[in-house]
Parts: sequence; C-alpha cells; structure tokens
Amino acid sequence: MSDPSFFKTPRPASLAEIAAWTGAKLVDETRARYMVANVAPLDTAGPEDIAFLDNQKYSGQLATTRAGACLVHPRFSARAPEGVAVLETPEPYRAYATVVGKLYPAALKLEGAYGEKDLVSPRATIHPTAKLEPGVTVEPGAVIGARVEIGQGTIVGANAVIGHDVKIGRNGYIGANSTIIHSLIGNRVILHPGVRLGQDGFGFAMGPKGHQKVPQIGRIIIQDDVEIGANSTIDRGASRDTVIGEGSKIDNLVQIGHNVTVGRHCIIVSQAGVSGSTTLGDFVVIAGQAGLIGHLTVGSGTQIGAQAGVDASLPPGSRVIGSPAQPFMDFAREVAALKRLVKRRKPDVKTADDKGADRDG
Amino acid sequence: MSDPSFFKTPRPASLAEIAAWTGAKLVDETRARYMVANVAPLDTAGPEDIAFLDNQKYSGQLATTRAGACLVHPRFSARAPEGVAVLETPEPYRAYATVVGKLYPAALKLEGAYGEKDLVSPRATIHPTAKLEPGVTVEPGAVIGARVEIGQGTIVGANAVIGHDVKIGRNGYIGANSTIIHSLIGNRVILHPGVRLGQDGFGFAMGPKGHQKVPQIGRIIIQDDVEIGANSTIDRGASRDTVIGEGSKIDNLVQIGHNVTVGRHCIIVSQAGVSGSTTLGDFVVIAGQAGLIGHLTVGSGTQIGAQAGVDASLPPGSRVIGSPAQPFMDFAREVAALKRLVKRRKPDVKTADDKGADRDG
Amino acid sequence: MSDPSFFKTPRPASLAEIAAWTGAKLVDETRARYMVANVAPLDTAGPEDIAFLDNQKYSGQLATTRAGACLVHPRFSARAPEGVAVLETPEPYRAYATVVGKLYPAALKLEGAYGEKDLVSPRATIHPTAKLEPGVTVEPGAVIGARVEIGQGTIVGANAVIGHDVKIGRNGYIGANSTIIHSLIGNRVILHPGVRLGQDGFGFAMGPKGHQKVPQIGRIIIQDDVEIGANSTIDRGASRDTVIGEGSKIDNLVQIGHNVTVGRHCIIVSQAGVSGSTTLGDFVVIAGQAGLIGHLTVGSGTQIGAQAGVDASLPPGSRVIGSPAQPFMDFAREVAALKRLVKRRKPDVKTADDKGADRDG
Repeated sequence: MSDPSFFKTPRPASLAEIAAWTGAKLVDETRARYMVANVAPLDTAGPEDIAFLDNQKYSGQLATTRAGACLVHPRFSARAPEGVAVLETPEPYRAYATVVGKLYPAALKLEGAYGEKDLVSPRATIHPTAKLEPGVTVEPGAVIGARVEIGQGTIVGANAVIGHDVKIGRNGYIGANSTIIHSLIGNRVILHPGVRLGQDGFGFAMGPKGHQKVPQIGRIIIQDDVEIGANSTIDRGASRDTVIGEGSKIDNLVQIGHNVTVGRHCIIVSQAGVSGSTTLGDFVVIAGQAGLIGHLTVGSGTQIGAQAGVDASLPPGSRVIGSPAQPFMDFAREVAALKRLVKRRKPDVKTADDKGADRDG
Repeated sequence: MSDPSFFKTPRPASLAEIAAWTGAKLVDETRARYMVANVAPLDTAGPEDIAFLDNQKYSGQLATTRAGACLVHPRFSARAPEGVAVLETPEPYRAYATVVGKLYPAALKLEGAYGEKDLVSPRATIHPTAKLEPGVTVEPGAVIGARVEIGQGTIVGANAVIGHDVKIGRNGYIGANSTIIHSLIGNRVILHPGVRLGQDGFGFAMGPKGHQKVPQIGRIIIQDDVEIGANSTIDRGASRDTVIGEGSKIDNLVQIGHNVTVGRHCIIVSQAGVSGSTTLGDFVVIAGQAGLIGHLTVGSGTQIGAQAGVDASLPPGSRVIGSPAQPFMDFAREVAALKRLVKRRKPDVKTADDKGADRDG
Repeated sequence: MSDPSFFKTPRPASLAEIAAWTGAKLVDETRARYMVANVAPLDTAGPEDIAFLDNQKYSGQLATTRAGACLVHPRFSARAPEGVAVLETPEPYRAYATVVGKLYPAALKLEGAYGEKDLVSPRATIHPTAKLEPGVTVEPGAVIGARVEIGQGTIVGANAVIGHDVKIGRNGYIGANSTIIHSLIGNRVILHPGVRLGQDGFGFAMGPKGHQKVPQIGRIIIQDDVEIGANSTIDRGASRDTVIGEGSKIDNLVQIGHNVTVGRHCIIVSQAGVSGSTTLGDFVVIAGQAGLIGHLTVGSGTQIGAQAGVDASLPPGSRVIGSPAQPFMDFAREVAALKRLVKRRKPDVKTADDKGADRDG
C-alpha cells in the first residue's frame, strides 16, 4: 500500500483526467467526473481507488473487485462488475504506470533518503576540483572525488562514493552507499543503493605458480535512461569499454563482466550474469538467474529464460532456456520425453512412492 | 576458533550449569563439577572444551575427540570415548547454540563495528526531526533521515543509511554500510552489512519503443525477529507491501522482489531469489541458488532444493528440486533414468572414455 | 579503451623493452627500436599499439589487425600480416599482463577513489586506539574501529568500515563502501567495493517453534595476495575459522559460507557459492553460478563448470558440470542421449515446430 509517510497523498483525479493522461477510453462517459483518490491492486481497491488488470492470472479478481475504476484490455472489460468504471486500453499496465506517475511524481523522479532537497550537505566530502552544476543534491556522507562532473537535477545519495574523473549527466539518481569509479554516465540514469560500477574486471593470466593480475584500463559507459538495481556489479573494461545501452533496465544482484556490451532497451532480471566480452543486441531479455559465458554474440530481440545457461552465440530473435540453453520448444520436448521415460519403467506404484518422496526424498 | 580480540574469553562453566541451561542429561553425574572453558569443534576440542555432535557425517570424530564434554543425541552417546563427559539431548545443535549464547553473550546480541557502546557518534548525521529512544547506538558515518524513529537497544552500524520516515523497533542491529528506505521494521531484527531494503521494485511496462518505469509506492514490512544476510536485497511493494514474516531468516545475496510475502519462520539460503508477487506460507525452506518465478503461492512447510527453478504454485508440505522443479522422488528417478539411457548405448568403453573426459572434456 | 582521465597516458616503449619485460621473442629483430604508445585489442589497435592474441576465437582478427605489434603464441605467428611486428611467447596473455602493468602501474597497484594519495583524510573516523603504519591512505568517510592495525601502503577506500580488532597487512586495497569485521588479512590483499567480510554465518537450530540463532565465534583469515570481487560476501566461522588461501582470486557476488576453507590459488567466478564447512584444495576452479553444498571436500586441481550443483565430495583433478554435478563427459553424453530420445519420437515436423517455438514457446 502507499503510505503518506513515504509519499505525499495525491490530490484526487477525475476519470476524464485519467483518460486524457493515458489515452484509455472511458466506456461509460457519464462517469467522467467521478473522482479517484488513489491507485490500488484489484483485490484491495475500494470505491475511491483505480486498479488495473494486465495479467490473465488475476482476471478472476476483476469480477469481485470493489475498485471505483479499472484500466483493462477491451477483451476483459465485459467481466467488470456493474459498479466499476471501465477504462479500456490495449496496454493497461502502461496506462497504470502513467497514472501512478501523475499521482506520485516523487515516486517517478526518485528522491534522496535523507529528506532534504536541492541541498549539498556540509557532511558530504567534495573534492575542490569537482564541478557540480546548480541543482545537484548531495546527501550527507557522500564522497565526490577529484575532477568529477555532475549535471543538474542529479541526486547523489548518502554515503555514495563517486570516484575521481567520473562524469554523471543530468536528472540522475545515485543511490545511497553505491560506488562509481572509472565510469561515464548519461542523463536520467538511476542507480539503486549498493551498485558497484567500474571496479577491475576479473582478469588473470592463470598459471601453475599462481595467477598474474591483468591490469584493467578500460571504462564503463552508461548511456541515457539506464536503470541498475541494488547491489548489482558492473566491471570496467580490460582494454576496451564496458557499455550499457540507452534505456536498458538491470535488476538487483546482476553481474556484468568486463568488455560486455549491452544493447539498447535490454532487460536483465535479478541474479543473472553476463560474462566478459559478450555482446548483447537491442531488446534482449535475460530472465532471473540466467548466465551467459564470455565472448558470445546475442542477437537483438533474444529472450533467455530463467536459470538458462547460454554457452553459444544466438541469432536475433532466439528464445532459449535450459542449461545448456536450447530453444524453448526443444527444452519442453526434452522435459516431456524424460517424464515418459520414467513413466515407462514405473507405470503403477506412483502414488505410494510419491507420498514417500514427500516424507524422505 | 574464537579469538579474545573479537570476543571476550568466557568465564568457565560447570557441566551442571550446562545441563541446567540446555536441559541435557549429564550421563555420569559425578562429573557435574567438571569445568569447561570454551566451546570447540569435535576435531579440535581439548579437555577444557565442550563440543557437540549433530551431523551424522561427523560421528566418526566422536570416537577420537579429546573434548572434555560433548552434547550428543542419545543414539550416539555410546560411541563417546571414556574420557568425554556425555550430555544427552534430543537436540544437540540447539543445546550447543544455548551454551555458546551463554558463554558469548556479545556474539548473540550483536555489537557494532566501531567498538563503542551506547554512543551516538558525533560523526553520524542525524536529521533534527528523527526520534531515537535512549539506549540507541549510532556509529560514525551513519545517516539517519527526517522523521525516522528507532527503538532502544538498537545499533545503527557505521555508514548505514536510514531513509526518511523509516521506523525501526527495539534491540535491532542495522549492519554497517546497509541502506533502509520505505520500510517499517519490528523488534530484534538483524540486518547484516550491505543489506538493501526498500528500493524500487523492478517494474516496467515493456514496449517496442522502450520500457516505461512503473512508480513503486508500496512499503516493506519486516516483522519481529527477522534476520537478513549481507548484501541481500528486498524491494518495496509496487502498490501493496512486501512483507517478511516473524522469525524468518534470510541468508546472504538473496533477492526478494516487490509485493512478495514471506511467511513466518521461513529459511531462505544464500543466492536464492523470489520473484515479484509470490507468496510463501510459514516454515518454507528455500535452499541455495533456487529461484521462484513471480505470482506463485507456495504452501507452508514446503522445501525447495538447491538450484531448483520453481515455475508453478505448490501445495503445503511440497518437496521439490530441479529446474523446472518437481517432487524430489521424480527428480531422482529422472536422474537415474538418464544414466541408464546413456549406459545402454555405451556399455563397455566407459573407463577409457572417462579418463579422456578428465583430460579434455 | 584507456582514458587519460582515469589513467595517465603511458610513456612510449620500444619493442626491445617489451621483449625484455616479457621474455617474448621479437621475430624481426630490425624492429627492436619500434615504439608503441599503448595497448589495445586486436580489432581496434592502430600502428602505435601493441595487441595480443590468446583466445583461438579471435585468431581471425589477427589477419586483419592494424596493430603495430602483437604478442602471439608461435603457432599463430605466421598468420600475422606483414606490417605487424610479432613477439612470440608461449603465454601471450601473461606477457600482455606484464606489458600493461609496466605501462599502467596505477592500474596494477590500485589507487583510491577520491584522488589523493598517502593522505589520512580528516573526514575519516579513526578510533584513537587504532594503529596505522606510516604510508597508509585513509579516504574520506572511512571508519576504522578500536585496536585495528593496518600495514604501510594499504589504502582504505572512502566509506569503508574496518571493525574493531581487525588486522590488515601491507600494500592492500580495501575498496570503497566495503565492510570488514572479525577478520585477519594478509599482505597485498585486494577487496573491491562492497565486499562484506566477517559477518555471522547462517547458523540456526531449526525447530517447529522457530529457529534459534547459533552465535558465530570464529574469524576470517585472508592470506596474502588474495583478491575478492565487488559485493562478494564471506561469513566468519561458527567455531573454527573461515580461510581463504594464498593467491586465490574471487570474483563479484560470490558467497562463501562459514567454516569454509579455500585452498591456495583457487579461482571462484562470479555468483558462485560455497556452502558452510566445505573445504577446497589448491588450484580449484569454480565457474560462474556454480554451487557447492556444505561439508564437502574438493580435491586440488578440480574444475567445476558453470551452474554446476556439486552435492558430493570430489577427488583431486575432478572435472564436473551439471546439477547434480557429474564428470564433463558423462554430462555431454546425457545431453546427447536426451536429444536422440526426443528426435526418435518426432523425426520430421521439426522445422515447422521450431518456428512455432520462436513465436510462442
């Protein structure tokens, strides 16, 4: 739920306004002046709330919701109960995002943890050679190194560390306790707390007498509108750059190795890892806990399933899962074939055994 | 080993005291006044130490231990050598935990890193509107935001960041360099260093022109007696709350997505991940590196094996492993069936080939 | 690419110098006085750069490189174009590492983020009982606890926290925002930003009424020349020590449980995890996202593949992959057998179906 301690309660909005913000079609136009005070999930919403339905899984909740209004795909709108004002849109989740952004501007343009805006805290340490544009917020405990440059509207969170010579664009958010070294960062970039950018890649010339460290002299380039989740780590390049393309979104605890190029508008979900020197095209989606070995090329639009282990380059538009990764359909067939193989051998005692499995397996 | 630098050497305790603390039965009551000075593992313990045997794997060590005393399950007590005073208990590990807690109170109620107790450091930054009960420790470099409230006995570690409006109960431990925003935290909660609580969940309305950020307006609720490991990340809810139930224990580098509910007394082992909007019942155990997709319901008492990939809801008491996850016994059968399948094809050249595998595979 | 903002542009070096540094053989000795100004990858190098070829995958780039010089294995040297001065060496990657280290000494001996050398910042908090040898750098915001000792040449990064009684040797690098408690650390140890050393291991006596915390009274011992990646976590021992052996290199987001012993010169790649009380020999390699359960013994020289799940002890020199892990060759056979099994059932409709998989699978 939203909480007035963390975000100011929004001013109410009429369904006419919401239709205008989102382009959704208010099915019953007589409700245009109906006011909603907040957003809420279908199952907890009341008459003062607007909800949305995007995931089929929750379509049953639509029939019983007490929401005052709901953003829905036209194919579901007939299921809404009488009392719910229906706003039809082909992209309910996107419309919902727009509404929340309008009602909660502070949740869209992230704010600092300390609670003071547009303030360079005297408890921060800023090297005399650093250049901050007007309108930069620096929270207490932040450390900003020599020759750093930061654009207006950017917030540097409490106890974050910005290493010497780093450049950060405008309207960014550098989360508390994060570390950025050897990096050039675009505009509107969001780094959540604990992100580590720019440390040495994992490069060693291995040998029987020990492993010789390979100095890492590349950089990180983070293009505009990138978002990186909490405690994720991205290493700087060995002798070229590590690049995260425009608009790509990276979740928590993700690892990106040195020399990796992530294309534009990629999605990399939590705990996934991309090994060194691998290149992703645009709009690649990597689901949670998947891993890619190094030195691969992954074509644009590829989707990599959860926990997949990708050990070969992939053409554009691939859809793979499994470890080693293979096309979705091949994986499904193997899973099915294996089940048949087991069944053939033990066709009958199944129920009894399964109970045993629950106890001892 | 314990080290007097980190924990004060305990005062010696008699076996009678230990029996009283733990409810264990001292088999040879003539040894009631025997004094032990410390705890130690079976293999390194000497006559002045008390050890324990819990894991069958180490039962061989019991026969040769030089420990002065040992907490053991009655079924193993006959294996102890003559010189070892045996304390029988059905739960030796629990009894051991009790003894260590008595001998090392500072290891049970965690202490700050800096080494000064009950001190609000002048090198911390505390917003003038924050309210700290008497008996709160705030270490150097910690940053505490506007309107924060912290209960007595809680330690805020060095360089930790507590965001505006966060509430923390009594007798908690907020590890160094951790970050807490948008969260309400109960009593006796332990957060190890580098934990990230309350950042935005990973919510985007994906689209061919780029991904629209969905503002995240929920909170995190951490109930009493929860423990969360180093560098773990828990996102705040999108429009409802992310909840971690009473007594649940979460290991290092775990990811919990937005809107997740973890029930009471769950165990989530290192590097596991729970995706958004999934709900766990009580006493669920998730082993290391396992992953759950989003929007699932997992019944109470379920056990999920290491590296499992859970892609469907599970009834209470389930025991699953594999990716995709299936009942333990089914998984074991598939592993066996696959081995037979390979063997059928190549019945003889196996040894030679295996050597090859060790060299080139 | 290297960037003069982050590392000073090196002074040019002659091929004779480079041959002397590395022991490589300059094939055409008339080029001994040829000067190179920098290192670069094969595909982007120009006449002023020296490149190297180590990975067969890139041998095609050798034929078209515009590099002035190249370090290559003798078996590839004939493929170099006329204009490229070839330096032959059996270990081109090691030779390259040596050259980069000579040209970029600041990338080899890591520097602090803030940009001031040999300075104990007045914005750091150092307990009066801590002892720092001359020549220690302490960056702003670092917190150093009671009775800590740090050897000369070591850098303590901005906002790092060194807990009471920790000892750190000489010429080390403690990354920004890292936390070290209950640890004894050798010489030339590199900890990247966000590393967490020495927090409580995950020890609970589980039970139906809740889980009792087992106090953790061991330590961490980090031997000389160890390197640990960003946001990795290593727990201190329960009642013995957690030990990381000399020269071992650990990547980002790795988890090492309590009581683990890692031998000498091991390599543990990103997002791998080693559970409590497992012991690794020397020169063990664990690839990315692999996991080992607890209480195992893994022999020296063992190689564990990416995403492997190791659930049994392994003799020296093992090579395993898969979950559960098995010898490389057995795993390859199972993958092949499963493919044949699927093919047998559906021999013809494959192409059409595969297209379907790409759309809907």
